[in-house]
Amino acid sequence: MTASVVSRVWQARNPEYRAVVRDAFEANKAMSLIGATLGVVEPGIVDIHLPVHEMLMSHVAGIVHGGTLGMIADSALGFAALTLAEAGAVGFTAEYKINFLSPAMGQEVIAHAEVVKPGKRTTVARADVRAVNDGEERLVAILQGTLIPL
Amino acid sequence: MTASVVSRVWQARNPEYRAVVRDAFEANKAMSLIGATLGVVEPGIVDIHLPVHEMLMSHVAGIVHGGTLGMIADSALGFAALTLAEAGAVGFTAEYKINFLSPAMGQEVIAHAEVVKPGKRTTVARADVRAVNDGEERLVAILQGTLIPL
Amino acid sequence: MTASVVSRVWQARNPEYRAVVRDAFEANKAMSLIGATLGVVEPGIVDIHLPVHEMLMSHVAGIVHGGTLGMIADSALGFAALTLAEAGAVGFTAEYKINFLSPAMGQEVIAHAEVVKPGKRTTVARADVRAVNDGEERLVAILQGTLIPL
Amino acid sequence: MTASVVSRVWQARNPEYRAVVRDAFEANKAMSLIGATLGVVEPGIVDIHLPVHEMLMSHVAGIVHGGTLGMIADSALGFAALTLAEAGAVGFTAEYKINFLSPAMGQEVIAHAEVVKPGKRTTVARADVRAVNDGEERLVAILQGTLIPL
Repeated sequence: MTASVVSRVWQARNPEYRAVVRDAFEANKAMSLIGATLGVVEPGIVDIHLPVHEMLMSHVAGIVHGGTLGMIADSALGFAALTLAEAGAVGFTAEYKINFLSPAMGQEVIAHAEVVKPGKRTTVARADVRAVNDGEERLVAILQGTLIPL
Repeated sequence: MTASVVSRVWQARNPEYRAVVRDAFEANKAMSLIGATLGVVEPGIVDIHLPVHEMLMSHVAGIVHGGTLGMIADSALGFAALTLAEAGAVGFTAEYKINFLSPAMGQEVIAHAEVVKPGKRTTVARADVRAVNDGEERLVAILQGTLIPL
Repeated sequence: MTASVVSRVWQARNPEYRAVVRDAFEANKAMSLIGATLGVVEPGIVDIHLPVHEMLMSHVAGIVHGGTLGMIADSALGFAALTLAEAGAVGFTAEYKINFLSPAMGQEVIAHAEVVKPGKRTTVARADVRAVNDGEERLVAILQGTLIPL
Repeated sequence: MTASVVSRVWQARNPEYRAVVRDAFEANKAMSLIGATLGVVEPGIVDIHLPVHEMLMSHVAGIVHGGTLGMIADSALGFAALTLAEAGAVGFTAEYKINFLSPAMGQEVIAHAEVVKPGKRTTVARADVRAVNDGEERLVAILQGTLIPL
């Protein structure tokens, strides 16, 4: 399956961007609560992996709760913006919009976020969320959002 | 603080709508994982309460992870639509958009969702999310989304 | 029909806010192109009226093009934010999201925007769009968006 | 500049999809009012071109009104969905979300829409809007929206 977001090459301004993201992810209790782990971290790009378990289910058996998809994807957007931030910056998500495309079923869900336009005042990013079911990937949600540095 | 969504009076088509919502909420593992509870359930209106605890925190100390706000608010939108559905219907969130207004700090977060326009093909709803801090309420996020009956 | 956004009372920081909005509206060629006029202008609140004419139609006869609803509502959001801005500030729309609820038919369309949360860095606002058909109002679209002062 | 949406290959179910889109575009008065023209039409893909003229300006000189970007991009989303529809189907935009990335300046604006997920009940699509200024393209807005067949 073709990705529906496409990498553009951005330069990290803080050479320690990877450590910054990893530290922020480690400090994030909510990511720990649902069992999410950090994947790829490149300038403007972050993946978050979520192994599927019983406690992530919606009220329909076998289908992961959409809110948990939003949760990892929202976080991936924020961390993607953080890879391009100045040292010491803390960002927050100003807003995002998510479309759910298919029920998320399988063993793992992966949110892949990419910065579309970095900026001093706002950074705009997109994300795709895929579910991996018996080795087959399916696009289950897409996002678009705005991050603001503090 | 004045509510920014306003109740319109809708009629429930299924007199058992309250039981339907409660059963769906009970079956929802993700709501249980984060510790959310069901509040008001009226035709077209659902509140979800989330007592704040350590494991809901973002990477900034004392500030609840935005994704958890999205999670309860997204669910509140879906359950609000469900109060107006035919017996036996199962709905899902097609999409939503959330704006974060202020950092969510305090002892409890409450998502209040209201149906704006119910329909056979799509139902549109809005939600407000408030944080309760030492008895004072603050609007921390607003949502708008589309629910689809199955 | 009850409004689905609710006025909160905001204070204008620039006593000339009304003139600022009227001047900006006058200077706006796109508003003139579609024939839109400025209605209510209060602190945090702006209405834009659009008399319906043949050239606003979508490809379905009698139904106003959704993009023109977006156009007046987007502008109403921006002008509502402008009523609360410092003297000399120019704002722009960072993003918005619109849900179309019903086909817009009738003699006039009115976009009513209200600021939900003003801020130095971002202002968040909501809007309702109504169509007036033979004296009867129908809610045809709702918006939520972010404005940024420059 | 790299595109931030990526073509996936969809099959048109109606071999006359191109004529369907061209007829709908021709019938669309609002597109004519602003001076938009139809560009590429492929299965799941539609471009709309908008030559910039004085009457499209916002209240800031030289900057195209964001609402007109929304208008062509919203239409491009709808027509992209229409390329994949059954014969006789009429679609409408249920909702969209737009992020403005940069002021739109130049001689032409182009909205490029691609279907991400077609479906019987809903089709989800993304769009990029570019401004062409003295031969140089700049990404000025991105969209994500839902189309519904009628």
